[in-house]
Amino acid sequence: MSMSHAEKQEAFRQGLLEHRILIQTQVPGIFGHAAPFDAVIRKLEARIDREVAGEAERVYFPPVLAREVVRSTGYMENFPTLCGSVHSFTGDGALHSALVERVKQGGDWGEFLEQSQVVLVPSACYPLYPTLEGELPPGGKLFDLVGHVFRHEPSDDPTRMQAFRQRENVRLGSADEVAAWCEGWLQRSIRVLSALELPVRLDLATDPFFGRGGRMMKATQRAQELKHEVTVALFSEERPLAITSINNHQDHFGHVFGIHGADGGYAHSACIGFGLERIALALFHTHGFELEGWPAGVRDALEL
Amino acid sequence: MSMSHAEKQEAFRQGLLEHRILIQTQVPGIFGHAAPFDAVIRKLEARIDREVAGEAERVYFPPVLAREVVRSTGYMENFPTLCGSVHSFTGDGALHSALVERVKQGGDWGEFLEQSQVVLVPSACYPLYPTLEGELPPGGKLFDLVGHVFRHEPSDDPTRMQAFRQRENVRLGSADEVAAWCEGWLQRSIRVLSALELPVRLDLATDPFFGRGGRMMKATQRAQELKHEVTVALFSEERPLAITSINNHQDHFGHVFGIHGADGGYAHSACIGFGLERIALALFHTHGFELEGWPAGVRDALEL
Repeated sequence: MSMSHAEKQEAFRQGLLEHRILIQTQVPGIFGHAAPFDAVIRKLEARIDREVAGEAERVYFPPVLAREVVRSTGYMENFPTLCGSVHSFTGDGALHSALVERVKQGGDWGEFLEQSQVVLVPSACYPLYPTLEGELPPGGKLFDLVGHVFRHEPSDDPTRMQAFRQRENVRLGSADEVAAWCEGWLQRSIRVLSALELPVRLDLATDPFFGRGGRMMKATQRAQELKHEVTVALFSEERPLAITSINNHQDHFGHVFGIHGADGGYAHSACIGFGLERIALALFHTHGFELEGWPAGVRDALEL
Repeated sequence: MSMSHAEKQEAFRQGLLEHRILIQTQVPGIFGHAAPFDAVIRKLEARIDREVAGEAERVYFPPVLAREVVRSTGYMENFPTLCGSVHSFTGDGALHSALVERVKQGGDWGEFLEQSQVVLVPSACYPLYPTLEGELPPGGKLFDLVGHVFRHEPSDDPTRMQAFRQRENVRLGSADEVAAWCEGWLQRSIRVLSALELPVRLDLATDPFFGRGGRMMKATQRAQELKHEVTVALFSEERPLAITSINNHQDHFGHVFGIHGADGGYAHSACIGFGLERIALALFHTHGFELEGWPAGVRDALEL
């Protein structure tokens, strides 16, 4: 009797916890990483370092960014349920007493807080664009960054974490430069991930746009072939897991943040995002819970 | 005519931005890290890797943790203004239309959101304790982790960021084991940081407990010598910058999370936290904005 997708997923989750690869917390979708998982993620980062060395300018941004970025990019229109808004207490001693009373009673205490100026980063490249206002140099720019991303979708499924890391390269330039860079990464990403002996496939994809209006956004995105995902069928062929995505934003961010190409038009942008936790999960699922037992080719590729 | 503390601080901030070491964002206290700053932080992490290699179990936790941890540890009693609570939209299509209208108008939209089950991590070691419920092995445990920390205190001062990283080692065990480990790190932390040719000093310190009740907490903490900081006088001798802290929590976390020592009593815990951004800032302030000009001894210690 064969197991269902959900049963296989739950068995994998149990295995990860029993082998102390992931660590359970009190919140669905928030996992601690034990030593083997942490080691694989660090080795993956080093593998990508070697792959892209010297091509890009390395930058880093913290896990929170200006709420204004969410407003100006239409994020609350398109992905309202995923955003994490940061709220803080700004009251005096009297209000503090009431707050503490509520906290002790066990209820929510959001009504005592004010919405702050920051939200959790929804995608690793979002903090970059507002810093690029102005004109790009001829030939455009290429950035390399790793970011902590939050998406509010509580679930026990370790392949759908609420908090995870994206290692991204972000290209800005003319429409042609950006399209060519995306095209190059379609095959290159397959090569990099195949070297880890993962049974990967390249799929056309869409973002999870919200509601009825979102259906048209998805149709347009698919028709223009703006988003591709590298996937691995972990639990079923029908619902493969996306472990890397390549996204052409056209001039969306250029327009919103006033980033111009050397030709004066709005800059185009695109990114490749490696889902570090998901690649690590695909590796543990494919090669087993014991790092020592992974194939020699994989251990070599990761310098394990 | 000599510059004031505030003038020196502002001149340093300008220098960091002009040399593209830090990158300005729209929010005070949230900085992007340009390539030199990112490189120094990565080299610092590698330096600490070499220092503590093999001693500790490496673990990792994401930048958000269960709100329940904030409730049970008394964080809202002691540090209410610093906590960042994560709120999300859980409404339907009709409420979404009202939300989008508000976002477009330019106002705050917190009233459309619900308090989620997570808050931003207030201190790198907080996510660890709830995973340790039960009995420690004889001799206790030692963990090594790096965490993204958020503290809501908007300020232009780059030495007081809202989002930053703490590299921590966390010791759990008997009162004697934990006290001895803290004692060892008092000198060891000075040795590690002195090797970077920073003019460091060891100070007794207190946490920023809130309000009138907090004054007694601080007095007790100081009298029992539970918190030490390694400081550097960047802008004035009177207000030195803490770059590393060593904290003995006694049995606070053991009690809250039911962590027992091998002797059956509540476990004691302590941590050393290296403030990675602050150490990097102290290095740029002390040795200059150009990495190439840093003293050979510092470059050697960091393998720059």
